[in-house]
Amino acid sequence: MTPQIPKGFRDFLPAKMNLRRQVIDTMSKIFRSFGFEEFDTPCLEYAQTLEGKYGEDGEKLIYKFEDRGGRMLAMRYDLTIPLCRAVAMHPEIVKPFKRFQIAPVWRADKPQRGRFREFYQCDIDVIGSENICHDAELLMITHTVLKELGFNNFVIRVNNRKILNAIAAEAGIAPGDIAPFLRSIDKIDKAGADGVKKELTEKNLLSASTSKRVLDVLLNTETTLSDVSALINRTDPGYSGISELERIFTILENYGITDRHCRFDLTLARGLDYYTGPIFETTLTEPVIGSITGGGRYDNIIALFTKNSLPATGTSFGLERIVTVMEELSRQTPEKNTTIHVLITLFDDTMMNRCLAAAKMLRHSAINTEVYLSGDKLKKQLSYAANKSIPLVALLGPDEAKTDSITIKNMAAGTQETVALEHCADYIKNILTRTNRNQNRCPG
Amino acid sequence: MTPQIPKGFRDFLPAKMNLRRQVIDTMSKIFRSFGFEEFDTPCLEYAQTLEGKYGEDGEKLIYKFEDRGGRMLAMRYDLTIPLCRAVAMHPEIVKPFKRFQIAPVWRADKPQRGRFREFYQCDIDVIGSENICHDAELLMITHTVLKELGFNNFVIRVNNRKILNAIAAEAGIAPGDIAPFLRSIDKIDKAGADGVKKELTEKNLLSASTSKRVLDVLLNTETTLSDVSALINRTDPGYSGISELERIFTILENYGITDRHCRFDLTLARGLDYYTGPIFETTLTEPVIGSITGGGRYDNIIALFTKNSLPATGTSFGLERIVTVMEELSRQTPEKNTTIHVLITLFDDTMMNRCLAAAKMLRHSAINTEVYLSGDKLKKQLSYAANKSIPLVALLGPDEAKTDSITIKNMAAGTQETVALEHCADYIKNILTRTNRNQNRCPG
Repeated sequence: MTPQIPKGFRDFLPAKMNLRRQVIDTMSKIFRSFGFEEFDTPCLEYAQTLEGKYGEDGEKLIYKFEDRGGRMLAMRYDLTIPLCRAVAMHPEIVKPFKRFQIAPVWRADKPQRGRFREFYQCDIDVIGSENICHDAELLMITHTVLKELGFNNFVIRVNNRKILNAIAAEAGIAPGDIAPFLRSIDKIDKAGADGVKKELTEKNLLSASTSKRVLDVLLNTETTLSDVSALINRTDPGYSGISELERIFTILENYGITDRHCRFDLTLARGLDYYTGPIFETTLTEPVIGSITGGGRYDNIIALFTKNSLPATGTSFGLERIVTVMEELSRQTPEKNTTIHVLITLFDDTMMNRCLAAAKMLRHSAINTEVYLSGDKLKKQLSYAANKSIPLVALLGPDEAKTDSITIKNMAAGTQETVALEHCADYIKNILTRTNRNQNRCPG
Repeated sequence: MTPQIPKGFRDFLPAKMNLRRQVIDTMSKIFRSFGFEEFDTPCLEYAQTLEGKYGEDGEKLIYKFEDRGGRMLAMRYDLTIPLCRAVAMHPEIVKPFKRFQIAPVWRADKPQRGRFREFYQCDIDVIGSENICHDAELLMITHTVLKELGFNNFVIRVNNRKILNAIAAEAGIAPGDIAPFLRSIDKIDKAGADGVKKELTEKNLLSASTSKRVLDVLLNTETTLSDVSALINRTDPGYSGISELERIFTILENYGITDRHCRFDLTLARGLDYYTGPIFETTLTEPVIGSITGGGRYDNIIALFTKNSLPATGTSFGLERIVTVMEELSRQTPEKNTTIHVLITLFDDTMMNRCLAAAKMLRHSAINTEVYLSGDKLKKQLSYAANKSIPLVALLGPDEAKTDSITIKNMAAGTQETVALEHCADYIKNILTRTNRNQNRCPG
């Protein structure tokens, strides 16, 4: 039988998995530092929980099947809808509920470079508060996570659906056309302003009454919040979208986040229909890889599941793209990524207990220690360490045994030193601290 | 629409999830300290990869469905078979391959108390070595993990399929009957020796030629390795099973693991057919909850996927049972389990920036800090902290602002103290260290 894996699915060997885990651990640490707590939902839901939530195109991509009991089940398509279902089921949850979830989702999409049928989403959401400060907090977290991962060339673009709706109305777009109109606007990154105008014309979303002046402001990434306030009537409910963003940017500036990393962008529209307020998306200025985070306020989704409607806002980090960029920008080849610190070689079977005891000691000092358990030739043992990119090799032969010492070989430097067994944990930690500095951070 | 979750599936709210995450993190830390690295396989496999691997009963429990492309897919049923498929697909993996994987699996089983359709397995395996020292290493890891989690009343029972096969033959069991014979033996924990004998008789697995003397030795938990060596002919290939276990127990004893926590038990048989050598299972002496770990050597499975057969051994930790026992034995109610250390209350909006700056400082000191972002009455903010079991509340009003200080309220002790802002991180860490000692460890 030929071993095979379905298309669009992946095995993660340790070197790749270690980087993914480091990114996930960093995110969790930052999320928790802001008082967000972890929460998990099942990978399978009743199909009807997911149906009708992701638009026509999304609907087709849901993995669905009938179980033996005749129930239609569906695999998790995103983390937001199951969260809303769970919050509606558990009214005892204290609000505002700040949760994070880092988990796989499945989409029966056409596999392509960088697009998979199984991939991770990393979501933070605040449920049960209309307070716009929570939207600002999501942006602080986005900024903190990306900085902690070593990213520097990123911009979190922020807009507000209230503003977009008001401007679209101002431009003369009919209320029923606003959703498809925004979906076209959302393509400006790839198609440019002219491309969007062409699509709007083709889709009959522009009419004789469409204001060209308003449209030009709308399709301009340089448009400022004050430009916008000149376009919207102060009595328009959409005007509050401007003050919401002003509040958000004031808070962020005070927190030390400037417009270098977070700024207003009127052309940001986001594809999903369900956003009701601030929306956000992070792009890298280099490399160009599409957005690496995205989200916004969705005050009306939970009402689909319960009479007690709850306002909500959230954002999602794209693990796959973040890891891809880190691998591409890193000078380190991902294959070198190991969490093993030391390999203790085995001189012969008579040294086994001594090697295991040394390993036990090192493990107590938080040094990840593998013992080579077979009495192969030293050369084979060293090449095993080299193949796995283990940075240090320890030798514990009869000479070392006599003097209660151990020889530590630095594989990269090609040097070795014999040190007293009782000092070797400190000696090893020293080397690791010196060589591991800034490892696995994105240099871009 | 009524929000519902399919039977046998669970949401994990933060208090429950935090404990699960702590257990998972502890396991990962210990696994890595022994030089095991993380590895992941997809949640979906081709159905044929899983079919015919889990016996008749298991086969029925696999979640299977046809995707839009007409391919039969199956949800991961355990972590072992996908590992074998992946190892066969990736001959470049350096051997011995020591990996761990902590991931959900799915079984369309009848949901019962403590039995779920989606649950986590935590597996460690060594692929590509016949060396029995790796089996000993798995037992060291089992011991270290359970101790680190705070377990004390556990026994890792060890046996060897080679011994069982040899004794079964010695007792007069026909070769073709050995597998069902062992499956009956495996029920001795629940059925007792007499119950097993009854089942063996009913299933016609005993005959006139069955040696009653051998059977009595086999069904006795007190039987020692030397008792066994008296039964098996030294020229029998099964005899090597005895020396393998002797070697394992010698290594463990030298590593500091005595027969209090790890011992030979001839009645341990394990249900699965595929084991070929040492087998192991951990039971708690209190509470009685079935096994919490189980595994063994399976030298012939990878040969199902590739011509280059590879020996392998592994063991699995049952996360669900481990967490259940920790919750039951813990004096702490699981609801009190939060990772938030401090809630900074908001006096009014004019204090927002100061509160966020204080939070930023605390977060830099690895203190998980939530800021209450709405200007509700202090009473409401305090009851929010109490409901979420946040241990400390910080007050930063105009008085504190004037003196660059902050008031820290210890919610459990009911005390509060005003400290200089620049010292408050140390002050808080001190309280947390004092109160958190031994939290979330199993006291049994």
